[in-house]
Amino acid sequence: MIYLDNAATSGRKPEEVYLACDHALRECSGNPGRSGHAASLAAGQIVEEARRMCAAFFHAEKASEISFTNNTTTALNTAILGVVRPGQHIITSSLEHNSVSRPLEYLRSLGSDVTILPASVDTGIDPEDVRRAIRPDTALVVLTHISNVTGTVNDIRAAGMICREKGIPFLVDAAQSAGARPIDVREDYIDLLAFPGHKGLLGPQGTGGLYIREGITVNPLTRGGTGSFSELPEQPERLPDRFESGTLNVPGLAGLAAGIRFLRAAGCEEIEARESSLRERLYAGLSEIPGVKIYAPGPGRPAGCVLSFTIRGIDPSEISAILDSSFDIAVRAGLHCAPYAHRMLGTIGSGGTVRVSPNHFSTPEEIDSFLDAVRQIAEAARR
Amino acid sequence: MIYLDNAATSGRKPEEVYLACDHALRECSGNPGRSGHAASLAAGQIVEEARRMCAAFFHAEKASEISFTNNTTTALNTAILGVVRPGQHIITSSLEHNSVSRPLEYLRSLGSDVTILPASVDTGIDPEDVRRAIRPDTALVVLTHISNVTGTVNDIRAAGMICREKGIPFLVDAAQSAGARPIDVREDYIDLLAFPGHKGLLGPQGTGGLYIREGITVNPLTRGGTGSFSELPEQPERLPDRFESGTLNVPGLAGLAAGIRFLRAAGCEEIEARESSLRERLYAGLSEIPGVKIYAPGPGRPAGCVLSFTIRGIDPSEISAILDSSFDIAVRAGLHCAPYAHRMLGTIGSGGTVRVSPNHFSTPEEIDSFLDAVRQIAEAARR
Repeated sequence: MIYLDNAATSGRKPEEVYLACDHALRECSGNPGRSGHAASLAAGQIVEEARRMCAAFFHAEKASEISFTNNTTTALNTAILGVVRPGQHIITSSLEHNSVSRPLEYLRSLGSDVTILPASVDTGIDPEDVRRAIRPDTALVVLTHISNVTGTVNDIRAAGMICREKGIPFLVDAAQSAGARPIDVREDYIDLLAFPGHKGLLGPQGTGGLYIREGITVNPLTRGGTGSFSELPEQPERLPDRFESGTLNVPGLAGLAAGIRFLRAAGCEEIEARESSLRERLYAGLSEIPGVKIYAPGPGRPAGCVLSFTIRGIDPSEISAILDSSFDIAVRAGLHCAPYAHRMLGTIGSGGTVRVSPNHFSTPEEIDSFLDAVRQIAEAARR
Repeated sequence: MIYLDNAATSGRKPEEVYLACDHALRECSGNPGRSGHAASLAAGQIVEEARRMCAAFFHAEKASEISFTNNTTTALNTAILGVVRPGQHIITSSLEHNSVSRPLEYLRSLGSDVTILPASVDTGIDPEDVRRAIRPDTALVVLTHISNVTGTVNDIRAAGMICREKGIPFLVDAAQSAGARPIDVREDYIDLLAFPGHKGLLGPQGTGGLYIREGITVNPLTRGGTGSFSELPEQPERLPDRFESGTLNVPGLAGLAAGIRFLRAAGCEEIEARESSLRERLYAGLSEIPGVKIYAPGPGRPAGCVLSFTIRGIDPSEISAILDSSFDIAVRAGLHCAPYAHRMLGTIGSGGTVRVSPNHFSTPEEIDSFLDAVRQIAEAARR
C-alpha cells in the first residue's frame, strides 16, 4: 500500500517505536506514581522520560509544563473549557478542525461570542486581525498551526506576540505541525500547545499532550486519583498531576518517547526538507493534470505536507475509493472534520475534497505513482 | 518479582495481548472511522471488535452502548459531570475512590449536595439506605462495585433495583470488578458502568470505557472530530461517536479485545474461584500473624481479590519498602486514592494501609512467600 494519509495518523512508525511499546507492556507493567515497587517505578520512569522529551522538543522551560492526554482533542478541550468561562469572547480562524470548533460552538451555546478570523489558503490569517478582534472580554485566542485540509500555515509567532502583548492566553493546535515543523513555545509566545503523539511525532495512537505555560490558570476537565495528595478531597494544584487523573497509557508513552528520539536522530530539519520536497513534487504534478483543482498554498508559500484536491466531474469519495481499490493508495476524502475550512473553500456542499498527506517516509516514486493514478482517474472522468 | 499490585494494574498480561497490540501497531495503523482505505478499515474493525466484546462481556444490549475512554477516571467523570447539573443531589458511598469523590467534591463546590452512605467493611452499604437517601432532586446514585482498599463488595443489584424503581440513573465504578466478578448491566439494573481495560480485563494501560444504557442522557465531556457528521457544528448525537472525539487508542483496544478473549477461554467462573481461593489463603495467613490488623470482609463474606493490612509498630510505607527491597514483592502502601475509605477505617492519619492484590495468575506459593515475608517484618517490629 502507498500510504498518503499521514495527516490522520502516521501509518508507519520507526521499528524502535514498536519495540519500546512492547518492552514497556511486557517489562514495565506497573502503575506509574501509584506504588513504590520496582514495576511502578519503571513505569514512572517511562512517563517522566517521555515528558522530558516532549518538553525539550517544544522548548518548554519545565517538564511539568507537559500534561499527557489520550489525544489532541482532549488536550484542546482541556485548554478551551479550562480557560474560557461561558459568556467570554474567543478568537479563532476559519481553518480550524472540529476539535476546536465544536468546543467553541458549545461555549457559544452557553453565551460566548466567537470571532472567526478569515484566512486565505495561501497565507492563513492576518495576525493583525487578531489584534483588531481583541476585546476587553476576550479570554482566549486559539489557532491551528497548519490546516489539516490545505496545509496552510498560520503565522503563530506573529499572532502569539500580539496575544502576549495584550495578555490574552494563546492556544495552538499543533495536530499537523508537531514533529513536522519547528515549534518553540517560548519564541512563539505560546501559552497552551495541544499536540498528538501519533502523527508527526511517530508515536502510537492513544497519546498526546498539552503544554501549559507555568502561570496560566486552567481548570481541569477531569478529576480523580493522581497518586499524589490522596488525602485531599479536591484535585491537587500541582502540575502535571492536576491534569493527569487516572492511569496513563504507559506503553503508548514509551513509544512516543522512541518516536521523538528517532526524529532527533534523523534531524528535524532534514525531515522538514524532505517533506517540503515531496510536497512540491505533489503540487507540481497535480497542477499539470487537466480537471484537477488544488486547495493548498501556491508554490513558494510556507505549507505543511498535506493538501487537498478535487477532479471535475467525479466525487471526492469516488476518487479515494478508486485510489484504494484499483491502485492500493490510501488517501482521505470528505470534510476531514473541518467544516469551517470547507465552507471557506466552497467545497462543503460537494463532498469536500480528497486529501493527500505524505510524510518523510514517503518516496518520490510513491508520489509519482499517486500522480499517475490521479492522471488516469481524471482522464476517465473527462470521457 | 512477586507482583501483588493487580488492583493498580494487572502486571502480567496474556501473551496474546502483547501480540495483538504489536500486530495492530504494525499492520493496522490507519485512523479508524476517518478514511475508507484498507488501513483505516482494519483499524476500525479492531475498534468495533473490541466494542462488541465489551458489550457482550457486560451483557449490554447493543455494542453502541459502549464508548471507549483512556481509563476509568475519564469514564466516571463523563458519567458524573454528564448527568448531574450543578445544584442537584447525588448519593454515593464511603468506599469510593478519588475518581468518584473528587468529581463529586467539584459538584459540591458548585452547589450540589452529596449524601455519602456509610458502609461496613464486611458488607458495604445497606441498599435500603439508597432508598432512604433519594430526594426529589437526586440526579445520580454512584457506587463502587468493589472497594479498591478492602475488597468490600457493594450489593449493586439491590441498589440498582431501587434506583430503577425510583427512576434515578445508577452509575457503577467497576475498576476492581470488571473481569474479576460477573457484571450483567441488565440484571444488575446498571445505567452507567465505568470500567478499566488494564486491570481485570487484562488489556494494556490507556484503555477503558463507559457503558451508557440506551435512553440515558449524558452530555459529552469533550467535543471534536468523530469522523462522522463532519458538517455539523455541534457534537453528533449518535452513540458511541458522541463520546469518542479524536483518535482512539487502536493498539490498546486490540490488546483489550485479546484480554477479554483470554478471560472467556479461561472461564470467568474458574478465574473467580481461583481468586477466591487465593484471597482466602491470604486472609487466613495474615490473620495468624501477631500484630497484623486486616481491613477486609471477614471469612465467608463476598470479597474482591484485594485487602489491606497494617502491622503494629511499623509504618505502611516502610512495610511496602521492605517487601520490595528485601523480598522483591510488589504491593502498595498509602491511601490508594481513597480518602473516604481510610476515614472510615480510621487509617487516614496513620499512613493508610498496605494493600495486597493477587490475581488469577498468582500462585499459592507466591501467597505463602508473601505471608512469610510479612511474618518476618512483624516479628522484627515486635522486638
